[in-house]
Amino acid sequence: MKPLNVESAARKKSMENMTFVLFGATGDLAKRKIYPALYNLYLDGKMPQSMSVIGLGRTPLSSEDLQGQIEDALHQFSRRDVQNDNLQDFLDKFRYFIFDAMKEESYVELRKFMEEREAELGIPDNRLFYLSVAPRLINSIVNELDASGISRTNGWRRLIVEKPFGTDLESARELNATLQEVFEEDEIYRIDHYLGKPMVQNIESLIRPNPILQALWDHSQISNVQITASETVGVGSRASYYDKAGAIRDMVQNHLLQLVMMTAVHHEQKLSSTQIQKKKREIMESISPVSEQDLENNIIRGQYTPGVVSGESVKGYQEEDGVKEESHNDTFFAAKLCINNEHWNGIPFYIRTGKRMNEKATRIVIEFKEDSEATKDVGIVSNLLIIEINPNESVSLRVNVANHSSDKFEPTYIGFSKNADQQPEAYERLLYDGMIGDSTFFAHWHEVELSWEWVQPILDAFAGNEVPLHTYAAGSTGPEASHELVRRDGFNWN
Amino acid sequence: MKPLNVESAARKKSMENMTFVLFGATGDLAKRKIYPALYNLYLDGKMPQSMSVIGLGRTPLSSEDLQGQIEDALHQFSRRDVQNDNLQDFLDKFRYFIFDAMKEESYVELRKFMEEREAELGIPDNRLFYLSVAPRLINSIVNELDASGISRTNGWRRLIVEKPFGTDLESARELNATLQEVFEEDEIYRIDHYLGKPMVQNIESLIRPNPILQALWDHSQISNVQITASETVGVGSRASYYDKAGAIRDMVQNHLLQLVMMTAVHHEQKLSSTQIQKKKREIMESISPVSEQDLENNIIRGQYTPGVVSGESVKGYQEEDGVKEESHNDTFFAAKLCINNEHWNGIPFYIRTGKRMNEKATRIVIEFKEDSEATKDVGIVSNLLIIEINPNESVSLRVNVANHSSDKFEPTYIGFSKNADQQPEAYERLLYDGMIGDSTFFAHWHEVELSWEWVQPILDAFAGNEVPLHTYAAGSTGPEASHELVRRDGFNWN
Repeated sequence: MKPLNVESAARKKSMENMTFVLFGATGDLAKRKIYPALYNLYLDGKMPQSMSVIGLGRTPLSSEDLQGQIEDALHQFSRRDVQNDNLQDFLDKFRYFIFDAMKEESYVELRKFMEEREAELGIPDNRLFYLSVAPRLINSIVNELDASGISRTNGWRRLIVEKPFGTDLESARELNATLQEVFEEDEIYRIDHYLGKPMVQNIESLIRPNPILQALWDHSQISNVQITASETVGVGSRASYYDKAGAIRDMVQNHLLQLVMMTAVHHEQKLSSTQIQKKKREIMESISPVSEQDLENNIIRGQYTPGVVSGESVKGYQEEDGVKEESHNDTFFAAKLCINNEHWNGIPFYIRTGKRMNEKATRIVIEFKEDSEATKDVGIVSNLLIIEINPNESVSLRVNVANHSSDKFEPTYIGFSKNADQQPEAYERLLYDGMIGDSTFFAHWHEVELSWEWVQPILDAFAGNEVPLHTYAAGSTGPEASHELVRRDGFNWN
Repeated sequence: MKPLNVESAARKKSMENMTFVLFGATGDLAKRKIYPALYNLYLDGKMPQSMSVIGLGRTPLSSEDLQGQIEDALHQFSRRDVQNDNLQDFLDKFRYFIFDAMKEESYVELRKFMEEREAELGIPDNRLFYLSVAPRLINSIVNELDASGISRTNGWRRLIVEKPFGTDLESARELNATLQEVFEEDEIYRIDHYLGKPMVQNIESLIRPNPILQALWDHSQISNVQITASETVGVGSRASYYDKAGAIRDMVQNHLLQLVMMTAVHHEQKLSSTQIQKKKREIMESISPVSEQDLENNIIRGQYTPGVVSGESVKGYQEEDGVKEESHNDTFFAAKLCINNEHWNGIPFYIRTGKRMNEKATRIVIEFKEDSEATKDVGIVSNLLIIEINPNESVSLRVNVANHSSDKFEPTYIGFSKNADQQPEAYERLLYDGMIGDSTFFAHWHEVELSWEWVQPILDAFAGNEVPLHTYAAGSTGPEASHELVRRDGFNWN
């Protein structure tokens, strides 16, 4: 959701009647995110007049079965209560189609099914394919969409792809080559749901209309940028995946680097999605590649040991079910990046992420330069602009305010009022953008490839166990080395 | 009350035992402001260990009588409740002395009385003279303080003078010459109680420790400055004074011009009182003198007509008791000033004050330049820094925040948290500064003289009725011409 103005109206495409084809209709993501998102868009009138949604899955179900599952999912996961008077109208859009992604016939039948439904509704063959499936299926699906003619439409066609987008640079390139055999880059919408989060999207609508914030978002004012995504949970039931992926694949290559890009884009003016993608690419290209020296000094790998989280004793990573013996997997990652462009030259970006940390928080902190005149001993601290992304959603400035009863300065947080509590969730925003064809908040291939390029030497070093594995107690703020990384430059994690 | 740090500690003089001589001890100001201020300083331990307070008045009273009056005054006007367990200790400091300012003998006896009291308390002859008397008495008092030897001390001596400081440039110069015959400039403390107001004093402690605010307090960021001091009350019982003084003497020459100076001083670093006085003088010297053209275009004189204030019908100024028939007196004043120095060149200062306005408010508004990209039609407004001085005390920024339910931007006010509610009042701060010998928040003669110099051509033009007298309905926002003054430059009163 961008605010309406001349330029964004130009950016905004129209909402046309379409078929939404959901691969993975009985899956967890569909139930938790996609159906609730579609329902809330429906409630907001942000759906085409006539829409066919076809859910695909191997489980033999009827359309009524699917509609029943959707209704259950809405009751459980919709941010707004289910309204009985229009629920059936919403559910009526959905059809279930029993489908085996590996079988050619499935596609032939699907095509027929879709065409009949399009004819029934009198809608053009605008088709949105949503791949919420295991990565190994994508190759077949994309090729068969083409071979069967499903993706050869007279109307538009778009492909939404869920993460993970590869497991390293090479596999990502392979996956992308597969997609690009059939789809053009501007038809491919790679989801990074961090880009759908309200506060990430708000960075632009915060900075651009406020010249005072533009003035602060300036090389001469900022001392460093800190991006944190910490969790209190451990590896949970995902050990078999996580023990291979590590924090770097799970969080850094995608989400953290996207947050770096979104922070570093300058929002003096309204940018088209193409301009934003160009800027994000330039930012990634300006980040110094990871050198041997960086691996030694600016990259911190960590793993949690037993500790106490929220008053509860928890296992160390090594003791978690499903984790290989003597696993060197990273459950914590921190790094210092330098963006060598005119805006950010000399301003370090510190990023970190970890499981079993002391708090659940995703935030971007812009730290402003300190006044050398202002002495520390009266309680004066640096000014900060704090963007809380998750679970809190807020923007605040930290300023020094004199307390006249104590004769001292005290840090005070002044908050930009939040909007209505009921903001559209990430998936609502992203699905909506996908439906209208706005790729602003999706990851362009350039960004994905450059992120993997940046990450690859680290993957290699981690795989070769060439960098230390620092430990940190569960419930702590991460390994000491991560604090030292920032402290060395005269800062602290905020 | 400045926050303690190295430099302010250097600025801060010590609190020495002294005699506080109050001319006008039974007057209204003493009861409403001075006794409550002294009491609250006492409660805060901000008094010398041993202090003699001698109240002077013509009314025959005993010291016990005075102490009783003080106790009554405290119950009525102290910001903090009177505490019985230390009240007597506080009152014991006070002595009453029957005194006729026009009689030489009074001074001889006063000297003897003071010396006895100093001896009794074992304190040095540090003497603070507080003149809360009719202006016509000041000449005699100052000369007789000298002639009697009262002001010829071995310790320090200071003279606090209440407003009005003259009624025009000439009378102010005469008054000042009288004072300076006996006292040095750095012994003279001219009270402008607006300089004691917490939020005025806070401008420095707001800007200096916050580099982000320093960055905004910049020529390239600010489009204009607006200073408003509006009242809802009419002339009340003060018509005989006010009909001669007008808004320009009552509010502009002193309070509004002091607010202009305090706003225009740059607070990048802690300034000594001498440095602040120097800067304020330079600012006044940089203000373009009032030309014929200014009188025509940039000075607005107004007078209220009948209207409705807070739902109540009220008289026009002409109908008020004690106002001369066909009085041309100004109950409203607005002007545009230009400060021709490197910081403020090209940034207009708009000032206005009026009685019977729509709201009671003293505030400084810094308006920031707008982004030409940001179009008006989506609700984007200029950023403002708003310093509310009276009756509210707050600092806030106006920013544009996107409202995602309406797809529009909405102006949002983000407030710097207030300090403890119980802030020392203006008179506490000023009396304390007077007692420790810090003249930062008093009006230096240069400032007073330069203010009268700026105002004099306006006084002359008003006296000669050479400028239009605009009318405005009581309860309105002032004459249309005042809005036009600002609108002409593309702004609006905020």
